[in-house]
Amino acid sequence: MKKNHLIIGRQPLIEAIRSGRAVDKILLQRNTGGDAVADIRQLAREHNIPVQVVPGEKLASLTRANHQGVVAFAGLVQYMDLQQVIDHVVGSGGVPLFVMLDGVTDVRNIGAIARSAMVCGAQALIIPDKGVGALNEEAVKSSAGALERIQVCRVGSLLKAVDELHLNGIRVFTSEMKASTKVFELPLGEPCCIVMGSEGNGVQPYIRKAADEHFTIPMAGDFDSLNVSVAAGIILYEAMKNRLYGKLG
Amino acid sequence: MKKNHLIIGRQPLIEAIRSGRAVDKILLQRNTGGDAVADIRQLAREHNIPVQVVPGEKLASLTRANHQGVVAFAGLVQYMDLQQVIDHVVGSGGVPLFVMLDGVTDVRNIGAIARSAMVCGAQALIIPDKGVGALNEEAVKSSAGALERIQVCRVGSLLKAVDELHLNGIRVFTSEMKASTKVFELPLGEPCCIVMGSEGNGVQPYIRKAADEHFTIPMAGDFDSLNVSVAAGIILYEAMKNRLYGKLG
Repeated sequence: MKKNHLIIGRQPLIEAIRSGRAVDKILLQRNTGGDAVADIRQLAREHNIPVQVVPGEKLASLTRANHQGVVAFAGLVQYMDLQQVIDHVVGSGGVPLFVMLDGVTDVRNIGAIARSAMVCGAQALIIPDKGVGALNEEAVKSSAGALERIQVCRVGSLLKAVDELHLNGIRVFTSEMKASTKVFELPLGEPCCIVMGSEGNGVQPYIRKAADEHFTIPMAGDFDSLNVSVAAGIILYEAMKNRLYGKLG
Repeated sequence: MKKNHLIIGRQPLIEAIRSGRAVDKILLQRNTGGDAVADIRQLAREHNIPVQVVPGEKLASLTRANHQGVVAFAGLVQYMDLQQVIDHVVGSGGVPLFVMLDGVTDVRNIGAIARSAMVCGAQALIIPDKGVGALNEEAVKSSAGALERIQVCRVGSLLKAVDELHLNGIRVFTSEMKASTKVFELPLGEPCCIVMGSEGNGVQPYIRKAADEHFTIPMAGDFDSLNVSVAAGIILYEAMKNRLYGKLG
């Protein structure tokens, strides 16, 4: 981690967050308190920034500057508010096409998904603040820059994000091995969000339950294991085809 | 590299190659000669196995056994003869769907492509003996085992392989940014081979020239950079859809 990605000290961090700068993680020295630290904890909650309490030695290993018990990692990616993104897309005449990452931990897969999203006209990625691969330099590189261009919404709860999507008329689709609907039968021309689960476990049950449709990518044989970024690419491609050329099947 | 992946000594190597075992690479000690070594060189040519001449110290660093100037790396993947694979596919009533890798060097991408190929019913991967990522443990792992199940044909010349495909009535399709044919307009239900180029440079000009059709994957915006394994997945998915459900567009 390069030094210029660190935000050091209480007031600099408060100002950075208030100015809208993305912050990946805050390290707080154990037993550090006071009004400024309370403000930081409050801001972290509001902006879904993970806070980790660490020994002073950890902070000292990161910087020799006077850190006042607070060091944060500035994000390479600018996080946006989900409702603001929805308002912006709809306000500019677009039809929302979003991708939600539920437990995709491999940063190269995340990068590849961001590329496919950009190519296929998706406007935003929705990621949880925990349990997803970091949008770090490797992810940005794997994305060929797409992660710096697509809107990224980091949310504290994917389930609340699903509610917010529903309130805005955006349907949520998840893949499920045994679903009877095939991906090309989905109404992908309508406002929608595709949820991609982890390679190992798929989409979490409570998200699957909250989703509007379950679909499957068909298979030609007895081998059913697509790479998650390839699966996402196929779904996004179907959505793009549907939107550019109409529903051909 | 684990020891049991090494083939040590002249006669063991000759027998291994003759018995059809895949060999990734042969290391020959500098200034080693004799009939057996001439046989090895001849077999290597016939089976498209790269031969590297190295100092004796290199071989000594790999094994303490009596290597007689010859050490080879056994392949994890069993290579097949292209014509035999074509004969087998056609003979069992299948319609050939092959993937040729022209300069795809990232082993994780190769693994992901093998998975898509298996899921979508492609019967074989065609790879050159140079300029492609090694089908090593990482590739096999990334492929979720697909590389151990799909037929892999390693050829000395991709151009000769294209000729062989043509002689067998198999058409060759390559992607090209400026092509007017869209991927879903290709006759993917017919016997065909898709060529995937390197991420940096795409398909080599002489292969592109020998191909029958050039196609493009459409884009929704101004971002045109799909990951190569995602692009392969989309094409193979279109082929599968065409073959399973007919040409829907």
